[in-house]
Amino acid sequence: MLVSESRFLRACRHESVDCTPVWFMRQAGRALPEYRSIRGDGSILDAIQKPDLATEITLQPVRRYGVDAAILYSDIMVSAYAVGFGVEITPGVGPVVNDPFSTLDDLQRLRPLEPEEDIPYVLETVRSLTKELAVPLIGFTGAPFTIASYLIEGRPTRSWEKTKAVMKEDPSLWNSLMERLSQHAIATLSAQLSNGANAVQLFDSWIGAIDLAEFDVLVKPHLMNIISELQTRHDSPMIYFGTNTAHLLSSLDVLNADVIGVDWRIPINKAWDRVGRSHGIQGNLDPSLCAESYEAAAQGALDILGQIDNQNGHIFNLGHGVLPDTDPSVLERLVELVHEETRR
Amino acid sequence: MLVSESRFLRACRHESVDCTPVWFMRQAGRALPEYRSIRGDGSILDAIQKPDLATEITLQPVRRYGVDAAILYSDIMVSAYAVGFGVEITPGVGPVVNDPFSTLDDLQRLRPLEPEEDIPYVLETVRSLTKELAVPLIGFTGAPFTIASYLIEGRPTRSWEKTKAVMKEDPSLWNSLMERLSQHAIATLSAQLSNGANAVQLFDSWIGAIDLAEFDVLVKPHLMNIISELQTRHDSPMIYFGTNTAHLLSSLDVLNADVIGVDWRIPINKAWDRVGRSHGIQGNLDPSLCAESYEAAAQGALDILGQIDNQNGHIFNLGHGVLPDTDPSVLERLVELVHEETRR
Repeated sequence: MLVSESRFLRACRHESVDCTPVWFMRQAGRALPEYRSIRGDGSILDAIQKPDLATEITLQPVRRYGVDAAILYSDIMVSAYAVGFGVEITPGVGPVVNDPFSTLDDLQRLRPLEPEEDIPYVLETVRSLTKELAVPLIGFTGAPFTIASYLIEGRPTRSWEKTKAVMKEDPSLWNSLMERLSQHAIATLSAQLSNGANAVQLFDSWIGAIDLAEFDVLVKPHLMNIISELQTRHDSPMIYFGTNTAHLLSSLDVLNADVIGVDWRIPINKAWDRVGRSHGIQGNLDPSLCAESYEAAAQGALDILGQIDNQNGHIFNLGHGVLPDTDPSVLERLVELVHEETRR
Repeated sequence: MLVSESRFLRACRHESVDCTPVWFMRQAGRALPEYRSIRGDGSILDAIQKPDLATEITLQPVRRYGVDAAILYSDIMVSAYAVGFGVEITPGVGPVVNDPFSTLDDLQRLRPLEPEEDIPYVLETVRSLTKELAVPLIGFTGAPFTIASYLIEGRPTRSWEKTKAVMKEDPSLWNSLMERLSQHAIATLSAQLSNGANAVQLFDSWIGAIDLAEFDVLVKPHLMNIISELQTRHDSPMIYFGTNTAHLLSSLDVLNADVIGVDWRIPINKAWDRVGRSHGIQGNLDPSLCAESYEAAAQGALDILGQIDNQNGHIFNLGHGVLPDTDPSVLERLVELVHEETRR
């Protein structure tokens, strides 16, 4: 079997599949005992600089769960970190920026990313994985809004106050920042694809914080630029994922991403209608159900599959990342369940 | 002028008004220098036990901003705290519960609230305010889902994992918990109304974390019970407010609250269509615009007013609480702007 004909990539292309493909955001990570035993202490930004370790961590969930795709063990902040912006990932907190972005001068700390020079270890991991994997490898990076919000706020926020201030008060500075981060995204994802990744996902975790008008004017053009540039350079599927996007779904259609990932807050069939049936849809089981019990997860999965009715173009996933205290056996059984229930 | 004929209460009742009423969630608080100078250190749960202090803090924004309603200085957790569940409000964190709710036994720590015995200081503050205020006083408490999530998680969460586990695994325990918290809400709000509050708001800040099906089955019946019970006992308007409710709006219609408060994520006119035009609507300026500049806030306000077109039943507010570093002069000018722009 060729990876290009795998059910995951076929689903991304809206082609017929033998059964619905499954993978889990953050499938590589703390839920797995084998991860905890090799991960060691220290920042993820250090861990991903060890290609052997990052490769093994990426492979673990593929072995354990039988998922239909691997997702690169990396971090959404790696590009900003690699060009020297000054980013740390503090355990229990998340990305922390010691000297947050606020003026035009700060753009100088965001020089263009040159992947071969700046993140050779990521590319080495990608190459090493491509060699080993029988299922597709999904590369990823953070989308510009989400990265910008971390760079501006300095740490995770619930109000996005400073970010919105820049968007509103200085749209020119905002757009310059988004352009730099778009270059990072294009360069990172393009290099991942050139080195062997089979698809890429843009993570825009916090995009739901803004309203539709802000999205349309100050974010969407940048996303369209990233997606069209990658589609020009590569013939590989592109997934766009955000949370809390119920109010933005109608504008995600024109992004023209191959697949739109959605969270659990809106029934998947309704979401699919709103982002356009010509795009694939990924999602959307509430991760808390998996942390709860197999029964809860299975019931939630069956609800989703009942809405989808084995339509091509659906990729089964969670609505956000695997929670750390999830019992791995729940995810393992869930993969089997989805495969069995959707066998064409 | 009678308070019962004030523009705020008329708008709650969908009656004609001379101009659109304005108040701000968390208008009493850290944005005001006069608040910081009298508030002192220590928990808000201590501060609200001093009726003179709580009265003065409630009055400050009325004096400063010229808003059309006062909102009681209190906390959504006061009932759970008052019956001895063991709740603290940690500055910079929020509600923290030392021994979180997890089993039937924990219900024993949630005995029925007897307002006159358990929170006499709140009622004293209400009475003292009613005496002084020329504008309506809004009482409030937390809605059962949001309180339950704090009691179960033990602290603010982004995943609501434990809460959802109880909802799913033990709906009977969940419903018992919701019933206790509903009794607290009814008793608190009813006592506030009996002691002089003119309207009440149920704050359900985290309700957007669950999907429509969970809301309909495990939350909505309890909210309907609270609202109908209060409407039976009192002839005063009831406001229901949540954030991230874009996916829940269609189910908020049947709650039959007099007014539905919405956040900034969805255009207010669209929200109003979805919650039903027979209900009033409250909102929905993004608070970050007020923290940014008057120009940004004014532009956002004009956008909202342009959608509403001076229809009766609109109460102007923010989409969530005032951010602490908001310049009070922005809010002051905003009240004037909304009044002028909507003069009938």
